[in-house]
Amino acid sequence: MDYRLDYITRVFTKLRSKPLEKYVITRIWHLIDDLEIQLVPQQYVQREERGYALTDLYFPQINLHIEINEPAHYTSETRVYLDRIRKEDIIRSTAHEVIEVDCRGSIKDINTRVDIIVNVIKAKVKEQREYDSFRPWIPDYQYSVEHYKTLAKLRVQDDVQLRTIEEICLLFDAPFKKRGFLRPGATTHPKYEDVVIWWPSTRKRKGWINKISEDESIIIETNENENTRENHLKNESTSSRKKRYVFLHHRNNLGITSYRFKGVYHLDEQKTNAEEGVVWSRISEEVEMG
Amino acid sequence: MDYRLDYITRVFTKLRSKPLEKYVITRIWHLIDDLEIQLVPQQYVQREERGYALTDLYFPQINLHIEINEPAHYTSETRVYLDRIRKEDIIRSTAHEVIEVDCRGSIKDINTRVDIIVNVIKAKVKEQREYDSFRPWIPDYQYSVEHYKTLAKLRVQDDVQLRTIEEICLLFDAPFKKRGFLRPGATTHPKYEDVVIWWPSTRKRKGWINKISEDESIIIETNENENTRENHLKNESTSSRKKRYVFLHHRNNLGITSYRFKGVYHLDEQKTNAEEGVVWSRISEEVEMG
Repeated sequence: MDYRLDYITRVFTKLRSKPLEKYVITRIWHLIDDLEIQLVPQQYVQREERGYALTDLYFPQINLHIEINEPAHYTSETRVYLDRIRKEDIIRSTAHEVIEVDCRGSIKDINTRVDIIVNVIKAKVKEQREYDSFRPWIPDYQYSVEHYKTLAKLRVQDDVQLRTIEEICLLFDAPFKKRGFLRPGATTHPKYEDVVIWWPSTRKRKGWINKISEDESIIIETNENENTRENHLKNESTSSRKKRYVFLHHRNNLGITSYRFKGVYHLDEQKTNAEEGVVWSRISEEVEMG
Repeated sequence: MDYRLDYITRVFTKLRSKPLEKYVITRIWHLIDDLEIQLVPQQYVQREERGYALTDLYFPQINLHIEINEPAHYTSETRVYLDRIRKEDIIRSTAHEVIEVDCRGSIKDINTRVDIIVNVIKAKVKEQREYDSFRPWIPDYQYSVEHYKTLAKLRVQDDVQLRTIEEICLLFDAPFKKRGFLRPGATTHPKYEDVVIWWPSTRKRKGWINKISEDESIIIETNENENTRENHLKNESTSSRKKRYVFLHHRNNLGITSYRFKGVYHLDEQKTNAEEGVVWSRISEEVEMG
């Protein structure tokens, strides 16, 4: 399915948002009526001192957050105060703009308020387009083998992601071999003899457990079973393929899965041990293509 | 809450519609952008020979049904054939128009198809407005005591409904008496000594069971408990109040409850018996107001 159609229908149906929130989000989307503008529901924002916040809606291309306030929001002074602090925190830590939608009153009142916001969004995008600084949302192309093949380098910072294992293999012209009904966990690089292309998941599968450190610089690969763990360690230590291009399996808050490029890791023989498992340390956040 | 806001947010959140259906319905609503146009999800349509059908969306003011066809719709020839029969049935038995939305293809394709339908709807309403034949959807007024007080008669055919018991009492200037924590089941008419204003529910409550016949001409009022049943029969037979104005409790497919006027019923002493309960037969589908 069309990525954007899949994405936006999930926004409308999967998220357990409140009724008024859903009304406002659907209205904003349909009235903007511009498929190149991305909206992100429940955007994670790091707060400087007070943990984190989730904003109801975020427009990454124009750095705009929208907070949708149900009528109950206004019934407690404490709540209004805490939400103001929260809003200031978000603005301070992101330098983004935050607009609130007051959902009190009639449907006419709410429509009018949303229409004003839609115009703000359209004006900001129009300005960026005029200055040629607008980055359109074209995920079907942006997250495609076709697009990545045109690049000189794959870089972690560019949010490289593919939706299937087949696509990862296609990107490197690597063989995709099914073993009976089993999906493979990795493939060899067709050009570099020391490279394996790996698509690990941090969800346990058949005893295998992968853990990635918070800064994503280290991946530990282990197995519940001691024998399997030791055999695997032996295999990797004696293998000539000590480097891995890593595409980590990810499932976002809409339930869309993808494999995200995390960089090049190498077998860290110092840290690797029979107890903890095989340790892979990142040696680069980019790979040359072509 | 604003009736229309309550109604439409329920359409968007309560109905377990498929993702593409939800996308199309929200788009139609927001792009029509006209609060006087009502949309009805899952409209019941009687089919002449083959039971009934539910259409995905119905616009009662312009007699237009919309069927939203997910891509799976087109994968089976049998299904396509059966749906064509179904569509023809609906057109034949209602003389309404039915438009289909093909949800195959990209989000752009779907948007384009919906936009065409939105224009059709707007054009039809515009024409009715020009000929002064348009009946705007203003439920907050149409279903209000204020509005019904202006009428000479309450008629079943006019879809008379109120949202609360208090409103029913207010309409007739009748006393609304709470008995402690208990809500009353009826009240006396302040002007007519033979009339009780009754708001029964067909859902069992505290042993009481009310059943209404399919043509709504008969209501049977009974109780699980034999003693209660017999006492009630005795009370009604000796009471001077033999007529009832009936507002039947109803919960629609969006979960909105209301009390719908069903007409005037009288105690049917011939049909009433200790076994089945008290039988009320309809004697009129309207009452004089004022």
